[in-house]
Amino acid sequence: MKSEPVIAVVGATGLVGREMLAVIGEREFPYSDLKAFASERSVGEVIEFGDEELNVETLDENSFEGVDIALFATDGETASKFVPIGAEAGAICIDNSSFFRMKDDIPLIVPEVNPHAFKKGMRIIANPNCSTIQLVLPLNIIHKAAGLKRVVVSSYQSVSGAGKDALDELWNQSLAIFNQTGFEVEQFPHQIAFNCIPQIDVFTEDGYTKEEKKIINESRKILGLPNLKVTATTVRVPVFHSHAESVNVETERALLPIDLVKLLEGSPGIEVFASHEEYPIQIGAAGGDTVQVGRIRKDASVEHGLDLWIVSDNLRKGAALNAVQIAEMVLKTA
Amino acid sequence: MKSEPVIAVVGATGLVGREMLAVIGEREFPYSDLKAFASERSVGEVIEFGDEELNVETLDENSFEGVDIALFATDGETASKFVPIGAEAGAICIDNSSFFRMKDDIPLIVPEVNPHAFKKGMRIIANPNCSTIQLVLPLNIIHKAAGLKRVVVSSYQSVSGAGKDALDELWNQSLAIFNQTGFEVEQFPHQIAFNCIPQIDVFTEDGYTKEEKKIINESRKILGLPNLKVTATTVRVPVFHSHAESVNVETERALLPIDLVKLLEGSPGIEVFASHEEYPIQIGAAGGDTVQVGRIRKDASVEHGLDLWIVSDNLRKGAALNAVQIAEMVLKTA
Repeated sequence: MKSEPVIAVVGATGLVGREMLAVIGEREFPYSDLKAFASERSVGEVIEFGDEELNVETLDENSFEGVDIALFATDGETASKFVPIGAEAGAICIDNSSFFRMKDDIPLIVPEVNPHAFKKGMRIIANPNCSTIQLVLPLNIIHKAAGLKRVVVSSYQSVSGAGKDALDELWNQSLAIFNQTGFEVEQFPHQIAFNCIPQIDVFTEDGYTKEEKKIINESRKILGLPNLKVTATTVRVPVFHSHAESVNVETERALLPIDLVKLLEGSPGIEVFASHEEYPIQIGAAGGDTVQVGRIRKDASVEHGLDLWIVSDNLRKGAALNAVQIAEMVLKTA
Repeated sequence: MKSEPVIAVVGATGLVGREMLAVIGEREFPYSDLKAFASERSVGEVIEFGDEELNVETLDENSFEGVDIALFATDGETASKFVPIGAEAGAICIDNSSFFRMKDDIPLIVPEVNPHAFKKGMRIIANPNCSTIQLVLPLNIIHKAAGLKRVVVSSYQSVSGAGKDALDELWNQSLAIFNQTGFEVEQFPHQIAFNCIPQIDVFTEDGYTKEEKKIINESRKILGLPNLKVTATTVRVPVFHSHAESVNVETERALLPIDLVKLLEGSPGIEVFASHEEYPIQIGAAGGDTVQVGRIRKDASVEHGLDLWIVSDNLRKGAALNAVQIAEMVLKTA
């Protein structure tokens, strides 16, 4: 890999794509050329990027000529078609869709947790689901210290995880309620303004949603614990940015809250709120890079139990930042 | 007890007090006289009650003369002073504050669950916490069918649980965000508009909040299971009315989701959403009387596990309705 590779962001005009560009700029990711691709709808748009302007190009079969690293922020269908084309053309493709995540030969990576899953020569790397990424950082620390036995997750997920139109829908519905006018329900199965919706993605046969299955299956793959006992209930809340998770953890061995706090304090990517009176909140985590962990306390309802509250910006560490961190890792390794 | 008792609502101008009056009217609770008491601040107010008008009277030591049943919707301090005065004067006092709930000689009642805890001659009955009431209805059914082993609760609680000023704060903060003006944070520890706050009530020494302790301790008392293993994380969400709870239950014996659905369908006070695609939501439960249960599915992470989503209007079944149901029970029993 060149020290200053040619980078492409595919799906550059969406929420995650724009955040990828922002993170590339902020972290001064080295590149010789930076390309922005999107569907035909967005072609002609110009994206401000520091002092530069990026012309949005149409994504097609020839887009990846000369590209070294491609960051994909598209839907699964687009990714399923163009990630293999990019990889074939020689680019290392980091894909944020769910399409490749559970494939056996594709690594699913959170750099703080399982960087070793990437081996030289690999061309496709999957970026995990937002709600999974922020969960596995502290779970990995807990597992190393005390052995994970069982995890119960309930999520409080912001609307930005559903895209730009979803942000608009929360805004417009809230405003319509103030103005006592009617409004549309389009982006979510129900009104999201001043309401919580216990459905993210579609339902599977056993009653779990796909989002819940992602948390269960992706956590197992990233942590390398294929039989990890996990259950999840994922809920959309009327918040613009950042996901929160109420997490109950049962461990094999004793782990005192005070000792977990110490371990988390020394862990990259994690910010710990040690005092009970302080705790992470979504508006506080938005725009930041850390996975914030608080409300750490002993759960006396099992032999070795802990309750935690985990918050992170789903567009940053939950998507764009994690993808750029993978790219940084690739740059060092490949 | 007379068949048409003299009723008093104490704290009649607050959210719960007004809801108590509404429920008394809706359910055609029989009375010969209905009195409304409040602090001096509210005296002179007139409350519309059907075709009648109730003059709000100042609460004092002599308020309970001739009163048969007094429904208290005041803070704990007022209750601690005036409930014993009411009981001494001969009224059966049903108190919505937390002050008497955990006292050994005071019954804590959800009529569908433990009506037998009230014995003739008792003068004080405690009405449980809102988040507890909606939880114990389905838990009681589950316990009878399969034996409760452990319960993990994460709540999504509306701002109406914090009173009228809290409703205003969510409204005003949201509006200020639209208008890009500044706003105050007074009713909650942080901004509640477009944000979730994992703190309800104050913290106790072990890191749980008092609200979480209420769920744990009151559930044990109501269900008659003093050693029930429960943990809870309670979270305020930017929703006006109704609390939701993500509940993970481990049972002693097997209980299939389909069998639980059948049991819940036959249970008073419960509305069950049997299909996966439908589920209760807060805006749907608001103003209603039922405890709505949905997203019932098998949790394979323990031998006998179930996940549920429970929603109810915290001012109705969570407070006013339950109190009036207790009064109806008293009328039949006393």
